[in-house]
Amino acid sequence: MATLIAPSNHSSAEDAEALQKAFKGWGADDKTIIAILGHRNVHQRQQIRKAYEELHQEDLIKRLESEISGDFERAMYRWMLEPADRDAVLANVAIRNGKKDLHVIAEIACVLSAEELLAVRRAYRHRYKRSLEEDVAANTTGHLRQLLVGLVSSYRYEGDEINARLAQSEANILHETVKEKKGNYEEAIRILTTRSKTQLVATFNRYRDEHAISISKKLLDNQASDDFYKALHTAIRCINDHKKYYEKVLRNAIKKVGTDEDALSRVVVTRAEKDLRDIKELYYKRNSVHLEDAVAKETSGDYKKFLLTLLGKQD
Amino acid sequence: MATLIAPSNHSSAEDAEALQKAFKGWGADDKTIIAILGHRNVHQRQQIRKAYEELHQEDLIKRLESEISGDFERAMYRWMLEPADRDAVLANVAIRNGKKDLHVIAEIACVLSAEELLAVRRAYRHRYKRSLEEDVAANTTGHLRQLLVGLVSSYRYEGDEINARLAQSEANILHETVKEKKGNYEEAIRILTTRSKTQLVATFNRYRDEHAISISKKLLDNQASDDFYKALHTAIRCINDHKKYYEKVLRNAIKKVGTDEDALSRVVVTRAEKDLRDIKELYYKRNSVHLEDAVAKETSGDYKKFLLTLLGKQD
Repeated sequence: MATLIAPSNHSSAEDAEALQKAFKGWGADDKTIIAILGHRNVHQRQQIRKAYEELHQEDLIKRLESEISGDFERAMYRWMLEPADRDAVLANVAIRNGKKDLHVIAEIACVLSAEELLAVRRAYRHRYKRSLEEDVAANTTGHLRQLLVGLVSSYRYEGDEINARLAQSEANILHETVKEKKGNYEEAIRILTTRSKTQLVATFNRYRDEHAISISKKLLDNQASDDFYKALHTAIRCINDHKKYYEKVLRNAIKKVGTDEDALSRVVVTRAEKDLRDIKELYYKRNSVHLEDAVAKETSGDYKKFLLTLLGKQD
Repeated sequence: MATLIAPSNHSSAEDAEALQKAFKGWGADDKTIIAILGHRNVHQRQQIRKAYEELHQEDLIKRLESEISGDFERAMYRWMLEPADRDAVLANVAIRNGKKDLHVIAEIACVLSAEELLAVRRAYRHRYKRSLEEDVAANTTGHLRQLLVGLVSSYRYEGDEINARLAQSEANILHETVKEKKGNYEEAIRILTTRSKTQLVATFNRYRDEHAISISKKLLDNQASDDFYKALHTAIRCINDHKKYYEKVLRNAIKKVGTDEDALSRVVVTRAEKDLRDIKELYYKRNSVHLEDAVAKETSGDYKKFLLTLLGKQD
């Protein structure tokens, strides 16, 4: 379930007018900006952007960028993009940041459905005049490249069929890769980049049954510092249960000294219209603290107001 | 230009009736079947199939399979499928045939546009309940797997931009891979599976300028018997000039002792509505024999009649 609270009746023209008014004078009226855009769904935001362009011959996103700043601006910018375009931007940023962010590529590739991932590849091509896999491949090497290129290029089967024998044999192959650094990387990559998610979950379950530990935990035990294993870990977690994965991203972002605003914004902005309510519940279960309270404690100003709005806080 | 001759005015219902009549009695009236289906474009064939199903509660393709046989049947079956579905079938047959046919996978992946290839992946998933890359990966290993999976999963950028410096540096990388068996496979695979076709053609041109031989010829010199190099060769030829590639497939299929009907049918059926006329011209230029005459000499019966019809022979 989503956390976004959006009215069913709104007028794009009136919203565009109100935003224009909020931009007037010295310093924007951030409260109004949040009150409007923090309460509109993706379709409504695109309509407002269109209405604003027609009324004022100016791109609303560009105007927002010049009116606001910092973490608030970055979060708002991402919020204003269509989901596929937003993920294309997030993927590009991750590629440019290199090593430390490459797991975001695995996240995007493994959380999305086959058609959603394809829409991101289309948006990426349109925006950057290169293919997503081209940029990933040009900025990575070895097994990490093979894994990430395979993940972003996948168009997985999405039926419910499970092949139990295959799950058994491929759980064994994954075990070989996980338990020692000299594992059968190629086969592990083939399995994770081509099998259907339903089949993979069955394989992960077989793994847990045999080894009394989940494959993602086992991975953490061993080689969490290695980039390849980190991406592998992200891929497995996102395929297995992306909501639990996001809960952990939020937990880590919040508990980090200084707070990881990029990760925090990424999860809140990309999930607010999808399943952020479920993620919030998982967060509370795991931390005995409400996500809104944790976010409020670690952030401030308009950025805080905006995140809390997307988290479903009633004004 | 296409070779197919299809009337703009036809009635699907009348065609369906005429086909039903042709099926009656002992042995089908193949002449009528060819006269109708060999002169209908993809849209018309789908309409006839629909009309036939409605009129006779029977799938036209299934009926055709039971009425005709041999090379004629196989060619007609492929002709009756929609292009993306047909390519999905061709890819699956190639995977099942293994080694000797894997270059067909490279052919399909490199000749089609990004969206066309995607349509094939969609059709494959729908038909076989697995993804195309999944089946390719499960039936290959090593560099051949990396190359083929990369090719079928690609969604290349299709703009006209050329980066001349990149063409130079990547021509050098390809040269390393081609000149010795211990080449930098990984980088060659990255280049061929992710760069735009326009960029790759510029890279191949740089190669030729530097080495006074085309990269595909150079590949043939060295290791034509190796599966990986064979697929690499096919990929490069299809990206560089797929019509010249198809001319050669036809030439080899015809001059082979016993004729390679699978290859012959594949090219005629898949290109008849696209650019078979251009391929015919290339064939005549290269062999000083008209393709129709060569095909007529090497084939017989209804199969011959059908191919010649698709090749644009006036009845």
